[in-house]
Amino acid sequence: MAVRALWWESGKLAYIDQRLLPGRLHVVRTSHVADVAAAIRTLAVRGAPTIGVAAAYGMVLAKAEGRRADASARLLASTRPTARDLFVGIEAVRRPWIAGEDVLEAAGAYRERIVEECHAIGISGAPLFRGKPRVLTHCNAGALATVEWGTALAPIRVAKQRGARPFVWVDETRPLLQGSRLTAWELAQEHIAHAVIADGAAGHFMRAGEVDFVIVGADRIARNGDFANKVGTYEKAVLANENRIPFYVAAPWSTFDISKPTGASIPVEERAEEEVLELAGTRIAPRRSRARNPAFDVTPARYVTGFVTPEGILPPATLAKVLKGHLRPATAA
Amino acid sequence: MAVRALWWESGKLAYIDQRLLPGRLHVVRTSHVADVAAAIRTLAVRGAPTIGVAAAYGMVLAKAEGRRADASARLLASTRPTARDLFVGIEAVRRPWIAGEDVLEAAGAYRERIVEECHAIGISGAPLFRGKPRVLTHCNAGALATVEWGTALAPIRVAKQRGARPFVWVDETRPLLQGSRLTAWELAQEHIAHAVIADGAAGHFMRAGEVDFVIVGADRIARNGDFANKVGTYEKAVLANENRIPFYVAAPWSTFDISKPTGASIPVEERAEEEVLELAGTRIAPRRSRARNPAFDVTPARYVTGFVTPEGILPPATLAKVLKGHLRPATAA
Repeated sequence: MAVRALWWESGKLAYIDQRLLPGRLHVVRTSHVADVAAAIRTLAVRGAPTIGVAAAYGMVLAKAEGRRADASARLLASTRPTARDLFVGIEAVRRPWIAGEDVLEAAGAYRERIVEECHAIGISGAPLFRGKPRVLTHCNAGALATVEWGTALAPIRVAKQRGARPFVWVDETRPLLQGSRLTAWELAQEHIAHAVIADGAAGHFMRAGEVDFVIVGADRIARNGDFANKVGTYEKAVLANENRIPFYVAAPWSTFDISKPTGASIPVEERAEEEVLELAGTRIAPRRSRARNPAFDVTPARYVTGFVTPEGILPPATLAKVLKGHLRPATAA
Repeated sequence: MAVRALWWESGKLAYIDQRLLPGRLHVVRTSHVADVAAAIRTLAVRGAPTIGVAAAYGMVLAKAEGRRADASARLLASTRPTARDLFVGIEAVRRPWIAGEDVLEAAGAYRERIVEECHAIGISGAPLFRGKPRVLTHCNAGALATVEWGTALAPIRVAKQRGARPFVWVDETRPLLQGSRLTAWELAQEHIAHAVIADGAAGHFMRAGEVDFVIVGADRIARNGDFANKVGTYEKAVLANENRIPFYVAAPWSTFDISKPTGASIPVEERAEEEVLELAGTRIAPRRSRARNPAFDVTPARYVTGFVTPEGILPPATLAKVLKGHLRPATAA
């Protein structure tokens, strides 16, 4: 794959600073867990599966720095509250650390598991993309968000290898523009046809019959299929439903959280209002104006046509049964 | 009123360059119709009722420059295709011009009519705002868009004079940020409580029960109540309907177009893709990425609770009957 969000390199974690894309492709290398925590908090590293893997390697760095396992886990867990994967990634290394096992091997195994699951998601979802479908996505659920392949974008990549020629409507995804900055960048890298649109324009194209289906990633999926994802996802789900357009959610098992019966118990991060009131350091609203900035929203399961998982496309109704075989609750959050 | 979009001053049209707000309050004075056309095309002057009045005064300037009536009308009519008011404003001066009547008086009368209708809209809609309602609006339908008072914002102003304390959710309204730049500026000027949100966050707050109703303006309203307004309006209407939140559209008679039986025949302007791919002159998407940029969308009448007009709040079902007493088709577009 051309695009990788992060990798292990000579005892350091190397990662792309996603805040600088698409203008600049800058790789940071660090041997400090505090840097990893800061990178997750500031969204230099983002996307639920990617921050899970970054946190796993952060635990490896913490041990090499002579830190304690539980304090390091708490530091990393405090960075962001919504993504389930963060806590799964931390646990994947904390347990072997306490048991005296090889932590680098544990982090590597966790990374491999995520990458393999994303590839499997691609294989599960690729049949949706036969021919020349026009598909809409929100935020970035590509390789940058998942280390490699992506979740929502993985089926596009697999389908393209098989000769499909999809067209992607890319919601720009304000306030942080993960669509126009990151998804468009990944698609441009791989010469996949796409058009960026303002978030408010998606409904217009759905109503005009120019969207065949919607596919997004997720940050946490409750037992009943309610799920949290980047703010704006709920709007797309309602609009797809209103226009009888299928709506898919692609995620690895680390995103599913059986400890949460419904979406009502998923914590939603609210971020600084400056993300809305400024753009690239420039104030775009009056000095006296305030903003609200929920980073995520929760979409009820009834709007989901299917979850694209490593083991196929599951309707919300069968989710709970399948999940029992795969998941155990993480300890944090 | 503190805020006025434009006014006549010593033989010139004076207008606020709305592209520079909220950073800079810059008034342009011109005696050339070509400048007025350019100001409308570039959105220095915008908002359906405001561009109607600007075009009326543009016709006055054209006559003073020794130009011909029909060519001047065509020049102004070619600037933007969607807003009905543009053509009404042009006709309001073209006819007296051809009849040898006083064009400045005709433009002034048109301006007065619009301002009075907007004030009447405020009186019609003010009862909706009793107490401390939390209301969501999209784009700018304030004084800047209508010369004075506003359409969607007029009832807020009247209600505030009567002691109401509304709170306004302001959709930032990408790509051109008329919400965060203009609506927030008007509300800040008049100390009305508000919070700017990303366009994608409106659904989150609706679902959370934090929006009591939605009110927007319109650029053109068809005979059956389908209406065109800033892109993103359709999304808000569907989400309000899904969450059983009332949805109101405020407009003067100049925005209603009985020559259009439904929204399907309203022309929708598509603007340059750079408006989506850049922000304040900075490229935010990859060089290779393209964009689509419809400036408006069309919302079906079935999502509208009521039209807030100078003569009260009308449900879509009674619209056609009431309109017959008020309207005749304009000649252009």
